[in-house]
Order: sequence, then C-alpha cells, then structure tokens
Amino acid sequence: MADTFEKKLSSAVDAVIPKANAFFKDIEKRTKDGPGVTRPPYLEGEQIGHDMVAEWAGELDLETSIDAAGNMYMVYPGEDRDASVAMTGSHMDTVPKGGNYDGAAGVIAGLAALDGFRRAEITPKRDVVLMAIRAEEAGSWFTGKHGGHMGSRAALGMYMDNELETAIHLGTKTSLGEAMANAGFDPDKVANEPPHLKPERIASYTELHIEQGPVLQTEGHPIGIVTGIRGNRRLKQGKVLGEYTHSGAVPQHYRHDAVLAAAEFINRLEKEGLDLIDQGRDLVFSSGIFHTDADVNTLSKVSGQLDFTLDMRSMDVSALDEMQKIVTGIAHDIAEKRGVTFDISDFAAVAPSPMHGDERAKLHEGAKALGIDAIDVASGGGHDAAEFERMGVPASMIFVRNDRGSHNPDEAMDIADFALGVRLLAWKLAMA
Amino acid sequence: MADTFEKKLSSAVDAVIPKANAFFKDIEKRTKDGPGVTRPPYLEGEQIGHDMVAEWAGELDLETSIDAAGNMYMVYPGEDRDASVAMTGSHMDTVPKGGNYDGAAGVIAGLAALDGFRRAEITPKRDVVLMAIRAEEAGSWFTGKHGGHMGSRAALGMYMDNELETAIHLGTKTSLGEAMANAGFDPDKVANEPPHLKPERIASYTELHIEQGPVLQTEGHPIGIVTGIRGNRRLKQGKVLGEYTHSGAVPQHYRHDAVLAAAEFINRLEKEGLDLIDQGRDLVFSSGIFHTDADVNTLSKVSGQLDFTLDMRSMDVSALDEMQKIVTGIAHDIAEKRGVTFDISDFAAVAPSPMHGDERAKLHEGAKALGIDAIDVASGGGHDAAEFERMGVPASMIFVRNDRGSHNPDEAMDIADFALGVRLLAWKLAMA
Repeated sequence: MADTFEKKLSSAVDAVIPKANAFFKDIEKRTKDGPGVTRPPYLEGEQIGHDMVAEWAGELDLETSIDAAGNMYMVYPGEDRDASVAMTGSHMDTVPKGGNYDGAAGVIAGLAALDGFRRAEITPKRDVVLMAIRAEEAGSWFTGKHGGHMGSRAALGMYMDNELETAIHLGTKTSLGEAMANAGFDPDKVANEPPHLKPERIASYTELHIEQGPVLQTEGHPIGIVTGIRGNRRLKQGKVLGEYTHSGAVPQHYRHDAVLAAAEFINRLEKEGLDLIDQGRDLVFSSGIFHTDADVNTLSKVSGQLDFTLDMRSMDVSALDEMQKIVTGIAHDIAEKRGVTFDISDFAAVAPSPMHGDERAKLHEGAKALGIDAIDVASGGGHDAAEFERMGVPASMIFVRNDRGSHNPDEAMDIADFALGVRLLAWKLAMA
Repeated sequence: MADTFEKKLSSAVDAVIPKANAFFKDIEKRTKDGPGVTRPPYLEGEQIGHDMVAEWAGELDLETSIDAAGNMYMVYPGEDRDASVAMTGSHMDTVPKGGNYDGAAGVIAGLAALDGFRRAEITPKRDVVLMAIRAEEAGSWFTGKHGGHMGSRAALGMYMDNELETAIHLGTKTSLGEAMANAGFDPDKVANEPPHLKPERIASYTELHIEQGPVLQTEGHPIGIVTGIRGNRRLKQGKVLGEYTHSGAVPQHYRHDAVLAAAEFINRLEKEGLDLIDQGRDLVFSSGIFHTDADVNTLSKVSGQLDFTLDMRSMDVSALDEMQKIVTGIAHDIAEKRGVTFDISDFAAVAPSPMHGDERAKLHEGAKALGIDAIDVASGGGHDAAEFERMGVPASMIFVRNDRGSHNPDEAMDIADFALGVRLLAWKLAMA
C-alpha cells in the first residue's frame, strides 16, 4: 500500500479499534446471562446496547434520530448532502444466551468507521447513515404470525396486515405492538404512517457481520464478501404415522414402524441431497427436531409416530424446488411400501436473496486496494441486508471470520480480523 | 370326536364358559380405568382379582393357600396324591390402563378347567395346582434393579440379593418389600426361608395366555402352542453424539449431524436384520425411543445428540449375538465416516426360553384329540412360564387368538376361542 487514501483510512480506523474492543467488553459485562449474553428486543438488554451506541454517536456529533419502531439513525455528513445516502448498520439484540458479536459487531463497525472519518478528516461522497436496528432475532423472540426482522421491516414498510398484533413477544408475553409501546415507541405510527426509509433515497446498504459458519476459519481467510443469503424450504411439523405395537410379539413384516420409516426417509433424502451438492449445487439440509412421542413410547413398543422438522437452504431456488420434490417422492414411496402415513403438508418457503452484483464488485475492489485477503462466501442465516435488497436497495455484506458459530456463547472473533472488516466497511462507505 | 373322554371334557368345560365370561365382565367393571383396566401389583386392583378368584375356588372346594409373596395356590386332588403335581396359572395384575385378558385369562381358564372337572366328575392323574401369580407386569410397575416377574420368581426362590429393596414400586413409591408387607405378606420370609415351590415336585407347568401379537389372527387359527419365549438383546440408553451447529451457515461436508448419523445407523441395521429374517432366522427388532434433545434442538440447529433404544428379540441366541455384532460394526463404521460418537455400551441380555419339547408334543396331541385347530407360535413377550422352565420345570404355553395386541385397552379375545383354549388346558391337566 502506497502512502494513499487507503493507508490514511486504515491508520485512522486502526486507532479506533481499542475503543471498539472496550465497547465489546463493556456491553458483554452489562448484558451477561450465564456463559452468554441476552439482549431481548424492546427490553432492557437491547436498550443498553442502543444507549451505549447513542453515547459514542454523541461524541462524534452525529445527527441522531429514532423512528417509530425504535430503530436509531446516526448521520455523518457527506460532500453532497442532497444525494441519496450510503447506509450501514446491524442489530443490537441477541438470541437468549447468545454471543457478544452477532449483530453488535456491525453497529460498532459503523461507529468505528465514522470515528475513523472524524479523526482523519475524511468526508465521504454521500451522507453516511448508520442504523442500529431493533429486533432482528425475531425468530427466537416472537411466536405467532410474523415475517421476522421486525426492526428493518418496520423501517422499510414491509409489515403484513396485523403483524403488530399477531407477533407475540416471548419475553413480555404481549403483542409486538404492545412491546414497542411499552418501550416508548409508536406502533400506531408504524401501522398507519408512511415508512421511515425510502429505498430510492438509499444508494446502498452495507452490513458487517460475523460469519455464522466455519468457512472463513477452515479455509483461512479473515474476511468474506457475501454472495447472497440462502433461502429456505422448511417443514415445521413433519410427521410419520405408523402403528404402535408390541416390540416382541409382532413379526417384523406385520409392523408399521414409524422410526424405521423415518430413518429410511432421512437416509434417502441425505443421499439425494449429497448428489445435488456433488453436482455443484448450493445446498445444506438438516432435521434438527426428530423424535418419538415421549408420553407414549417405551423400549418395548414399536413406535407409531415420529415428529420431525426439515430445514433445507440454498442460494438457488431451483435446488430447493428439487429437494421438496424429492421429499414428496420419497415419502410417497415409503408410505406405500411400509403402510405408514407421512404428513409433509406445511412446507414454508423463504426466497434466496442474492447480494447486489455491483456492490459485491465494489467490496472486492476495496479489499484489493486495502490489501485484505477476502473470499466469496454464502450466508446461511437471514440478515436485515436481505430486507433492504428485497426493497430494491443495492445491498451487500462483509463477513468477519468467527471461530465457533453464532447464536451461542462461544462466538470467537479476533479483534484483528474485525479491524480488517472495519477498514473495508469504511472504504466502501467513503467511496459509495 | 367319538363319544369319548374328550367329548365329556369338552361339554363340561363349555358349560362353565358363561360363568367365566361373567367373571371377565365383572372384573373389568371393578378395575376400570379410563378405556382400559388397571390392576397394580400389591395394590387394590390386583387384590380385587385375587379375591374374585378365591371366591370361585371356594365354590369348588379347592384347597387354597397363600405364600409369603402373596401368590395363591388352589389344589384339585388327583388320583395319586403323592405324585408330583400338574401346575397351571397366570397373573392377575395388568399394566397401567391395560387390557382385561392379559394375565387374568390364564387364571380364569384354570378355574374353568377345574370347575369342568368337578361337574364331569373327572379325577386327574395328579393333583392339579392352579396358581394366581402376583406382579408379573413388573417391567411396567417397578424401577430400580430387579429381574421382573416378581411373584413367580419369589415362589421359585429366584430373587437376587437385595431385590426386595432395590425394586421400587411406581405406584406406592416404596421398595418391593414394603409394598408386599403393606399388602399383608411377608417379605422377610421371602428373603430368608426356602422357596415355596420345589421344582422337583412339579411335573409340569402349563399356562394359557392371550397372544400378544397378530399371528393367530392373521393366519386364521384360534389356538397357538408356544414354541418358546423370545430372549432379547436390549440397549436402554444408546446415544449418537455429533456437533450442534447452525443449520444454514455450515456447509454440509463440515457437519457432524447426529440425526443423519442415527438415521443411517437404523436404516442399515434394518437391512441386515431383514437379511437374517429372509434366511429363516427368528428375529424382531425395533427402536421404540428415538429422539433429539427437546431442550436444545430447534428447526434451525443441526442436531448434536440423538438418544435411542434398541429391542432385538429372537428364539435363537445366535441371531441376537449376530445382531449385536452388526450393531457394533455399523456404529463403528458410521462413527469413523461421519466424525460422530456412538454410545452403545449398556447392552443387556435375556436368554430365550424354549418351551419343553415333550410338553409341546403333548399339547399338539391334545389339540388333535379334541379337534382343535392349533399351530406353533413363538412368544415375543416374557411370561412366568419362562421362570418355571429356567428352574427345570417342564413348561409349556397355550396362546388364544387375540385381535388387537396386548398391554392396551383394545385387547379383543373371542370367548369361543377362549373355550377352545380351556378345553386344551383341561385335557392337558387331566392327562399330565
């Protein structure tokens, strides 16, 4: 790296890293819950995070505002204040007893980038808007009917009818709307007024996040540039129904054993899935919940029922279509052969969200200019960035290597890797 | 059938069947529990049965006695009162919410046979001893260390050291010894005095029982002559340990999915087991309990643990040995291939109990003489008869066709089939 803008930017960012590191340690201490941290949306844990972020933003004299759903926006002025803005952000909530970095790292990265701008007196081309997003971990905190990612979807006007009533907060046992109101925000405004964000006013949305899988760690690269966010095809309440019977007295050929049927089903599904992967298709799949009925079954009873889930994810919607067809075909075949019944009626689908091509190219250009070792990776988990992309905002994501998965207390992000991620984010926001 | 002893015996038995049928209806009404019946050992339900049996035995002037464990013996005098005796019997307890016939049918059959002897003035060669046995359903009623079949094993002196203390009654929450004492019996005598029954004084033990499987029903025969009682090889606490991880973010080839490993395991085990059956080996197997951990697992987490049981049963101990070897081999192979761990350390074994060859031949001879359509069947469940056989008493069993399995409220025995079973039992006891 010559004595260039990149060098100046990197030095400025690096000077802020100790402060970011202290923030991580402080928020961990303040939201500790057993071995992990808990920052429930619209409750104290998340609010601690927002207050800490607001304090740092205040030190930087950022123009701060809060929308009706409680999302916070912090603006760093650019050269052309009338131009559409460069956004960054992530969420401050966590899953119960989760890790310290999933979410917070993206918001702290934004603060560190803007702090770097301030120190090095860098003025980006456009206004940079850092967004501290509410309630991204909705899958862990809300039951009932909802579309997840409650903060970003509120800001972008993506709620379904009545979602404020039908989403039930597991922490408060109230509706999402009541949880928002009790936290001091304005669900009526969320429901009835135009959304806070106008996609046409956003030039790009760039989110930094820890990787939730082991790819960067295993393949030895600190930074990933996300190709897209996998869609999914899920079965929440799959069932195999056979016939309960005596495990010693009934000859094998007379049985309709739900466990044997389900085992064949999963085994054959795995083989077909691995074939697709071997053909180069993007695909992962698992059955996270797989169980006989604890109230009925015993060692000496042939099982008459097995409940299971399926989670199949891919960047490629045709691979998900194909897997669903395979599931149906295998289930039909086994049902006929074994005299059992499969209930696979409740498939739900979320479409893949490929990240914006020009934005990805820009991130690769930045990594090259900064001398950062970055590779393409897919994101298996959902992120707010997908909601921006769905609403037509050119969106991209920077993943930081993380040793031990996310959504657990063992998340392990090296602060040096984080510093590289912040350099790249800052470069992107300055150049956007 | 000519106008023979067989005809006289059959007519005498048939005359008692309405009384037996009324007994079944009465005991069902008096021990009703939801859709089924509950007769817990050493508690009221079982005692109701013993009291009803004693009443009928009283009408027949049988010599009645009760041993230290509460088993009741009813003696019908034979020609040679010094000869070793012909025994019959079964148990009066049931599993919780079980069926009306499992156990009771064998005792009522004995009463009906002896009532028939009385009516037709038949004197058997030897004394016939009918035993109403306690606590056969120990597998459903006792936890802790015990060998099952508590009544017959007490009478035969088969308890292990301390079994009266280590067996814990689920209904009374006391030890077996306390349960016995509270019911008015004498656990100290059970522990310290010579057993009530002397195998060398028993010429034969013949037990009538409903079939617990569908073989007689499916193949269209009212009566089965039991070839033997299957032994078992069981795993009570099998485990597959993999690695919990994010179901979207971790590439398929990096995973150690406990569900996929367990499904392959069961699927391969089934294939090998079916091969043995196709080769003509006696074998049944199932995994009645098979589950991920409800406290940890979710749809969006790759499973890190699956718990399972195995119940493999056969008349042929070498088939069980072979299956255990197959289990070990497959587990080892999958563990290596998938980077998971199998815990299959707690295998327990019960040896098969072939019924006595001469006794079986005698029953076939009787069925032929009586014109009863009887076939050989194996017993999948354990029975008191196995304990007598183990102690050197020539033992055999008569199965009566039963439409819908046992240990459930749907047991369905046709009283006409029962009458055929009682004819055969009576013939055997008279000829023994």
